[in-house]
Amino acid sequence: MRDVVVIGAGMTKFGELWEKSIKDIFVEAALKAIDDAGVDHIDSMYVGAMSSGLFVGQEHLGAVMADYLGVTPIPATRVESACASGGASFRQAYLEVASGASEIVLAGGVEKMTDGADVTEALATAADQEYEVYQGITFPGLYAMIARAHMERYGTTREQLAAVAVKNHRNGAKNPNAQFRSEVTAEQVMKSTMVADPLRLLDCSPVSDGAAAVIVASMEVAKKLKKNPIRVIASSQASDTIALHSRRDITTLDSVVRAAQKAYKLADKKPSDINLVEVHDCFTIAEITATEDLGFFEKGTGGEAAEKGWTSIECKRIPVNTSGGLKSKGHPVGATGVAQIIELYEQLNGKAGARQVEGARIGMAQNMGGSGASCVIHILEAI
Amino acid sequence: MRDVVVIGAGMTKFGELWEKSIKDIFVEAALKAIDDAGVDHIDSMYVGAMSSGLFVGQEHLGAVMADYLGVTPIPATRVESACASGGASFRQAYLEVASGASEIVLAGGVEKMTDGADVTEALATAADQEYEVYQGITFPGLYAMIARAHMERYGTTREQLAAVAVKNHRNGAKNPNAQFRSEVTAEQVMKSTMVADPLRLLDCSPVSDGAAAVIVASMEVAKKLKKNPIRVIASSQASDTIALHSRRDITTLDSVVRAAQKAYKLADKKPSDINLVEVHDCFTIAEITATEDLGFFEKGTGGEAAEKGWTSIECKRIPVNTSGGLKSKGHPVGATGVAQIIELYEQLNGKAGARQVEGARIGMAQNMGGSGASCVIHILEAI
Repeated sequence: MRDVVVIGAGMTKFGELWEKSIKDIFVEAALKAIDDAGVDHIDSMYVGAMSSGLFVGQEHLGAVMADYLGVTPIPATRVESACASGGASFRQAYLEVASGASEIVLAGGVEKMTDGADVTEALATAADQEYEVYQGITFPGLYAMIARAHMERYGTTREQLAAVAVKNHRNGAKNPNAQFRSEVTAEQVMKSTMVADPLRLLDCSPVSDGAAAVIVASMEVAKKLKKNPIRVIASSQASDTIALHSRRDITTLDSVVRAAQKAYKLADKKPSDINLVEVHDCFTIAEITATEDLGFFEKGTGGEAAEKGWTSIECKRIPVNTSGGLKSKGHPVGATGVAQIIELYEQLNGKAGARQVEGARIGMAQNMGGSGASCVIHILEAI
Repeated sequence: MRDVVVIGAGMTKFGELWEKSIKDIFVEAALKAIDDAGVDHIDSMYVGAMSSGLFVGQEHLGAVMADYLGVTPIPATRVESACASGGASFRQAYLEVASGASEIVLAGGVEKMTDGADVTEALATAADQEYEVYQGITFPGLYAMIARAHMERYGTTREQLAAVAVKNHRNGAKNPNAQFRSEVTAEQVMKSTMVADPLRLLDCSPVSDGAAAVIVASMEVAKKLKKNPIRVIASSQASDTIALHSRRDITTLDSVVRAAQKAYKLADKKPSDINLVEVHDCFTIAEITATEDLGFFEKGTGGEAAEKGWTSIECKRIPVNTSGGLKSKGHPVGATGVAQIIELYEQLNGKAGARQVEGARIGMAQNMGGSGASCVIHILEAI
């Protein structure tokens, strides 16, 4: 497979973007990415979106966005893998360039969640409709069960969960595109409204609108443009049972473990080689399990690592979610996986401003769908 | 790019499958395809589906189907391009194998449309939500406008539209998987219930449940399995404006023209080299415009060609929709593009039974989304 690189990135601010349509925000992000890359055309494009039919009554987003972006007749395809739709979109763009079929491909992601749809019901379609949703379970409930099991088995504490939110809000406060640019204290997290015991409001990522896009290209294109390319040194994806009750152990997300093993192998790297990681912290517990399942900390010690500050930008052991993560940056589900790539792109180019991890050369992004039935992992390296 | 071949195929009967769930039918088709290919594993899978969120309240179909098929932890991704979702799914599988990332990939498609959802509303999400659907237009209305314009400009007649339905029902009557295995007369078509003038009930493809799957592999795998592979000699895709009113000419679908030009170029073939074609006859007029836009007949003469029988299996000029097409075989939207590939696979292997086109070596499939905002074309060749 030939080398594939990222040469441009753009995103909207994440948040409640009531004055803009799903088309507006996608086009805004895509134009920024095209402008950043300095390309005069794209050969093809992908749109990651989870549930635009239920959220805004619009499917067929590939063609819709190609039209409004003014790039017809190029191929334009929507990719969906629940909250991992953005990561899956990036992966398809990567595969298309790797195949040699295209030289320059836009990988985008978008979701418009605040326009009036029943968000909890729409998100629940990422779970097993027949065996989970029909019984009344929702995503905060599923992750609350994971959290409770993790606390029981490993002694993870309420304070440790809160430490994730505190750190991610601290990082997000430095991110101009974040939905919440406010710091929170552990006490505020632990006193926030209960959502699904033990998860409280400030343990949960918000409902967001937003779009993100990157330009993926062959190394030949990057050289011609004299761009400073960031190379994709691993793209991996794994699935797991859709329903939580079918898993062998709900405190370990096997899709994350499997995708990580594959990614490290493809990149010929190990966890200690990674300078920063964006993980899918849809709930605080998800960051704790992810940092364990990705191999950064031993199983059961992710909570302790968060509490001790080992995941902060300052500590440098393994900065996690320097962007603010889903928790503070926001979580427009289809856009999230692409926004993670953007954070790596900025960090590896040394352009992350106040969030910069000094000397960062290798970054990882872990994007997840449902309660872990999908996981997409990418490792990027500055050349 | 390396050679990519199809080595197995399987589908459910198309129709009103009330006793089976969306999972049941996908797994049925996938297992048939795996069995037909004789493979002991698959590396990855794609699920083409248009609007499973609106139809059955289930998104995240990649992981759902990987789980129920028992193939976790492989990568599993849903692809959506409205009614071209199946073709897009096949294209992504093709690109993945071509890239070298995988050796054996399942490309599937599925839709469950008869379980109680508002089908017309769900299908309308393939059109422009803001400028078309909000004004009350539905797909029969959009294609009726295309038909009316074609009749005005080229003198296409009501009888010529009916000839498409008559021929496709004649072919479908010979297809054991077809939803309608009954022949119809031109008179029956022209006296059927008016849906959107000039299109009547028997001009429209039906609402269907169904699933289809094929196994895509590298030539190396095919050789090891001693399979008689069918090679994918072109994969192309194009987009057009999402709304019909934005087009330069509604009697020509530019996405079809563009994708066809690309496909002929990639395959180094011309229309006269094609032995049979499956076209996207969601309405009778769509088959007429497709046979013109694909270059089989001069613009404006597709109706005459249908009436004169030039598209029949018997005539051999260019047999169109030997499977019965969407019209008679049925149109579970996400499955349709994959089912088209299956018809080519069977024909090129000489296994199409009573529908067999004698000596068929090269086949084309044209799958379309919306009123032509997406078009995916593949050309397959027997080796």
